[in-house]
Amino acid sequence: EYDFDYLHIILWKKAEEVIRQGKYKELNGIKVISLETAINEGILYFTPEPKSPHGADIAPRGDYIAVAGKLEPVATVYSADKIWEAIEKKDYEGRDVYGVPILRFDTVKVAQVELGLGPLHTEFDDKGYAYTSLFIDNKIAKWTLGPPYFEGDEAWKVVDKVDIHYNIGHLAAPESNSPSPKGKYVVALNKWSIDRFPILGPLKPQNFQVIDISGEKMKVLIDYPIGIGEPHYAKIIDINKIKALEVYPVGTDPITFNKHPHAINKGEERIERTTIDGKPATIVYATLIRSTITPDIIRVKQGDIVRIYATNVETTPDATHGFSICEYNINASLEPGETATIEFVADKPGVYAFYCSEFCSPLHLEMAGWLIVEPT
Amino acid sequence: EYDFDYLHIILWKKAEEVIRQGKYKELNGIKVISLETAINEGILYFTPEPKSPHGADIAPRGDYIAVAGKLEPVATVYSADKIWEAIEKKDYEGRDVYGVPILRFDTVKVAQVELGLGPLHTEFDDKGYAYTSLFIDNKIAKWTLGPPYFEGDEAWKVVDKVDIHYNIGHLAAPESNSPSPKGKYVVALNKWSIDRFPILGPLKPQNFQVIDISGEKMKVLIDYPIGIGEPHYAKIIDINKIKALEVYPVGTDPITFNKHPHAINKGEERIERTTIDGKPATIVYATLIRSTITPDIIRVKQGDIVRIYATNVETTPDATHGFSICEYNINASLEPGETATIEFVADKPGVYAFYCSEFCSPLHLEMAGWLIVEPT
Repeated sequence: EYDFDYLHIILWKKAEEVIRQGKYKELNGIKVISLETAINEGILYFTPEPKSPHGADIAPRGDYIAVAGKLEPVATVYSADKIWEAIEKKDYEGRDVYGVPILRFDTVKVAQVELGLGPLHTEFDDKGYAYTSLFIDNKIAKWTLGPPYFEGDEAWKVVDKVDIHYNIGHLAAPESNSPSPKGKYVVALNKWSIDRFPILGPLKPQNFQVIDISGEKMKVLIDYPIGIGEPHYAKIIDINKIKALEVYPVGTDPITFNKHPHAINKGEERIERTTIDGKPATIVYATLIRSTITPDIIRVKQGDIVRIYATNVETTPDATHGFSICEYNINASLEPGETATIEFVADKPGVYAFYCSEFCSPLHLEMAGWLIVEPT
Repeated sequence: EYDFDYLHIILWKKAEEVIRQGKYKELNGIKVISLETAINEGILYFTPEPKSPHGADIAPRGDYIAVAGKLEPVATVYSADKIWEAIEKKDYEGRDVYGVPILRFDTVKVAQVELGLGPLHTEFDDKGYAYTSLFIDNKIAKWTLGPPYFEGDEAWKVVDKVDIHYNIGHLAAPESNSPSPKGKYVVALNKWSIDRFPILGPLKPQNFQVIDISGEKMKVLIDYPIGIGEPHYAKIIDINKIKALEVYPVGTDPITFNKHPHAINKGEERIERTTIDGKPATIVYATLIRSTITPDIIRVKQGDIVRIYATNVETTPDATHGFSICEYNINASLEPGETATIEFVADKPGVYAFYCSEFCSPLHLEMAGWLIVEPT
């Protein structure tokens, strides 16, 4: 219907202020600013952009926004200053059907840089260069930003391209899109890896390629195929900024990051026969620590709902335990300190081994017990 | 009860002959030679070995067998020639309670090599060296075999050790335990990786370490953490010996490696309302190919068993498709040519998207359809 889409400009500090003033509705526990309020309070603006954009990536100083979409061979660059200016002057080309003000494309756009076929996402280094993935060309294009990074003829120019294997999507440079990009490397996050590795069967890995961007020419350093997942999107953050837990405080539910309501300490293990929603049930409060699962005998009646609150009471880093019952298709992985809930219906009578399924010590094989399902 | 275990010596060529003569019982479709027959026909022999052995690893020429167990700091080496000789001479120290002949330890053993604490598994290179993982010492020990590899004082000696991080189990050298070991590298397959990587959370990766064994001193070259699984056991085989399929013939069931009985070709898609075990059911014969799932509308009644025979009719390498229905916890991954069966009970009424969950082309997001569950 239209030959362009809209870049959405959201003034989030103003949105914060509007929330503080109570001008929101609560939907499913979330504070929501209505479109009408967003328009009236000057939170939301549009400006045209080429159709079907992928990335809208902000340069390190917050001065430029690079937008690229696979249908046009260019990156369209907007100036943050000019956007602010247009908003202040209310310099609109009109409004969309809902009343959102539309800033003039020619006023806020500062450049369109021809990059190649299928530009998607842009990352930035510490020297004023931008790096855009070219999905159809299977390349990364390196190009210059405008002032203050590069002036005059040096600005908005492609300076290098490097071949990437079929088929790049996102890419990641260290702390790109932050005020302190680190440069040095960019990682291509590639989907297929056809023709890249020896043939080992029909399932091929997804693959990362690490590219050295420290010199004039980009250089692919290494391929890093990965065992799981599709690398859709990733950010590289300085390890010193990550303050990760090495073990959970004992009894943590990793989903809520709070104490699990049914976590127990060593010595508090027990089995309770009860009902859940009126149905017969056995609830087990269990602990795991090298090299025992307690209780090591769980006796239930056939048909019981069996709910096991399992706490890995280890405080040693890396002391992950598993809890498996093969015949009931149960396999939980419990990191040190974690409490997890395991639930199933004991519909098959018999005696079933449960055991730790993560190697944990030389006595790992001894870390086991028995589920006894008495026939009814 | 005993202070030793038994190394089991099985003459498999003789076992083959006994099977050919029909001297077996069939149990669950498998031909089984009874212990009595194995004893009478001279297929099975024992010889003592230190308790709780892990590896019983055969040197490349088939001349030596190295046995190690974590309770003693030695590798015990047996001579294949001496075992053959003792069997021919019927030189037994006695028989076990079931009547299995026991060869004399001192007759068939040629060396015990002191390696360090917790020796587990042994691999071999192309120059007469053996490499044993030391589970408690966290090292690999490199040691010399006897004649014809090394003679006199040079034989059965530890020549180097290298530190491995906590905690090595198996190890793998290229084509070790084959007549043509390649040498050059050994890979340590390590369980925990505590203190090895920056702290990114309570779950740490398992880790491979690649060791250069081409020089006099072993040298750790690289760490290779892996995203999934515990690397319990692995063999390294020359890629030229692997004749892998790159795509399946369309309609293959990868479990049986045969044609799936419900595989279809493009154009044969259909939906059949029927019963399964007397229960109402909908059976769907579906195809997946860039960028459509056919049929793209599946209409069922609430409570139906829904069984989908899905065939990825792609013949292009790497053209893997997924089939996901989030709300029914369904996610299948179908490699090119694969047919898989997806089954669930449509107990929740409503309209649910199904879609490809493996990035497959620029039109990947369009590869979707609707499951309509009509309330009863």
